[in-house]
Amino acid sequence: MHEAAGEALRRRGVRVEDVVRVACDIARERRPQVTFAECRTHLEKVLEKREVLYAILTGVVLDELAEAGTLPEPLQEAIASDLPLYGIDEILATSITNIYGAVSLTRFGYLDKKKPGVVGDLNRHRNGRVHTFMDDLVAALVAATLARMEHSAQKGAGRLTKPEVTADAQEGLPPAASG
Amino acid sequence: MHEAAGEALRRRGVRVEDVVRVACDIARERRPQVTFAECRTHLEKVLEKREVLYAILTGVVLDELAEAGTLPEPLQEAIASDLPLYGIDEILATSITNIYGAVSLTRFGYLDKKKPGVVGDLNRHRNGRVHTFMDDLVAALVAATLARMEHSAQKGAGRLTKPEVTADAQEGLPPAASG
Amino acid sequence: MHEAAGEALRRRGVRVEDVVRVACDIARERRPQVTFAECRTHLEKVLEKREVLYAILTGVVLDELAEAGTLPEPLQEAIASDLPLYGIDEILATSITNIYGAVSLTRFGYLDKKKPGVVGDLNRHRNGRVHTFMDDLVAALVAATLARMEHSAQKGAGRLTKPEVTADAQEGLPPAASG
Amino acid sequence: MHEAAGEALRRRGVRVEDVVRVACDIARERRPQVTFAECRTHLEKVLEKREVLYAILTGVVLDELAEAGTLPEPLQEAIASDLPLYGIDEILATSITNIYGAVSLTRFGYLDKKKPGVVGDLNRHRNGRVHTFMDDLVAALVAATLARMEHSAQKGAGRLTKPEVTADAQEGLPPAASG
Ligand SMILES: [Ca+2]
Ligand SMILES: [Ca+2]
Ligand SMILES: [Ca+2]
Ligand SMILES: [Ca+2]
Repeated sequence: MHEAAGEALRRRGVRVEDVVRVACDIARERRPQVTFAECRTHLEKVLEKREVLYAILTGVVLDELAEAGTLPEPLQEAIASDLPLYGIDEILATSITNIYGAVSLTRFGYLDKKKPGVVGDLNRHRNGRVHTFMDDLVAALVAATLARMEHSAQKGAGRLTKPEVTADAQEGLPPAASG
Repeated sequence: MHEAAGEALRRRGVRVEDVVRVACDIARERRPQVTFAECRTHLEKVLEKREVLYAILTGVVLDELAEAGTLPEPLQEAIASDLPLYGIDEILATSITNIYGAVSLTRFGYLDKKKPGVVGDLNRHRNGRVHTFMDDLVAALVAATLARMEHSAQKGAGRLTKPEVTADAQEGLPPAASG
Repeated sequence: MHEAAGEALRRRGVRVEDVVRVACDIARERRPQVTFAECRTHLEKVLEKREVLYAILTGVVLDELAEAGTLPEPLQEAIASDLPLYGIDEILATSITNIYGAVSLTRFGYLDKKKPGVVGDLNRHRNGRVHTFMDDLVAALVAATLARMEHSAQKGAGRLTKPEVTADAQEGLPPAASG
Repeated sequence: MHEAAGEALRRRGVRVEDVVRVACDIARERRPQVTFAECRTHLEKVLEKREVLYAILTGVVLDELAEAGTLPEPLQEAIASDLPLYGIDEILATSITNIYGAVSLTRFGYLDKKKPGVVGDLNRHRNGRVHTFMDDLVAALVAATLARMEHSAQKGAGRLTKPEVTADAQEGLPPAASG
């Protein structure tokens, strides 16, 4: 399953490495020791999920059809121009973040506006390319990867009832992880 | 209904004006002519919604009980310390943003991380105050207010099939508004 | 906007009247005096919402492409066979129900399994037709229409603080409406 | 973490066995060979999830406070009377189902209306007990347990690209399971 997801991303000019890079840069703001390989493993686990695969495949085909100009109006215009009030691109992306809980959802919203790395590159829609779905899908994959890391770091720490949360743990990374 | 919502906010130290202020500052980044009164009207319409009222009342009571230290463990600790992986505060807030579509949801995620104005003030949890739910509720109210303005601006513009979306309309404000 | 939505439904063999019929039959279980015209007005208001239009247009185009057999694999197979774990059809439908609150969401889940009237007809996928998205979209439209009626009946009743909820009001219709 | 969840359920008169029973009865409609122990294992895995624990703990405390009559109005009345338009109970429950995808969400909606076994017992609110949140939480736990079984059965079957979906696989159980 993972191959079909990775293949669809590549077809649209997104390498799994680019997504790992964005996730890894953010994770290292709090945990400088995080390795690229560790981030990659978490992303690969996310890409193995059936709902994630189907969200990617569905978004990719809609981007491709809009790029080819073959969708019926007014859908063609809405997707090709990345109409701000279209909204189905974000809806599809939340089907990825939902699996990883509320931490993932707000992180997605942040990335979707901030557009770091490959997310921003996609959003620039250069040379007639349409990435209306892809930028949200990639933001969702990054958010899901980070949430998966956080949940697993917390599980490792193991302490639920006495979590010593400090003031700067607000952004979603557990304090044990930032030390 | 609107009075019960406003009253609950005030009880927790949040004035409706503070929320209007945050929404208005963001709206003016794209539409400098937006008036404070206009923003206030949109927020009031949001506060009239039953789901919005109940989300606020439920979040407020949980913040108050955590502040009083009377919740059973491990819930007391999770809410009092604003545990990043608690997540129910964001879930409650999304019941507000859902009503206003996907634009509202991603905007909420952004505000929830960026924490402008009163959202950030709340998040600082000074002097033993607990605002674990309130910061997300206020971020959601701002996101909903902005989405309501955008939907109504677009409706005024009226042109669905030929929306002249420009490159800088990506953040969710309609193009008519950015000119 | 409403015309584009109605037209897309008709193109797939669904008449607005069929959807009104299902909604009306369910509404009358509790409020026998509800008129067909009243139900129709509420559905039309639902169809005027931008998010609703885009969810319908996007689902319809995916059903049509799957019916024509022109989607890339494994998406073609997943949609053409209405694969139970595909899930994007339900995700798209919840972008409609979300606008009308939690009442609408659970009602949608019920209709999606129970499949009354035109929902069940669609689900039968006769003669090579693909209605993988359409059955969920119609269930969502019915759920949204009913939620809109209930919210407006409750608003008419006006009594928030003392709602005289009786045992048989559990299914989501307000008691004032059932008398 | 699992113990805190189970303990909160027991405190409200819900035994893990009762929840397993409802899930198991539904699973056996399609796969008669499913064992009670198998269902129990899947439910236990669901109860180990942090979001699930927090949703349960938060809902339970709100039910308990409403039962004690100590919430401020109009929240006290809304929860104590299980006001159909309150909606926060369903919102909390969807934070459980979201983790298990769209299959889980529609199943939850169905159970929430159909109210089999312990879900219906809870809904009857006998002797002044308040189970406004608990009936939705239990419905969500059942839906999540069934979705977890289906995903894992499908994974076992392993065939994604050629899933031989038959007409009676519509309700969400994989075809391999219904034979
Ligand atoms: Ca987009
Ligand atoms: Ca918070
Ligand atoms: Ca379907
Ligand atoms: Ca309930």
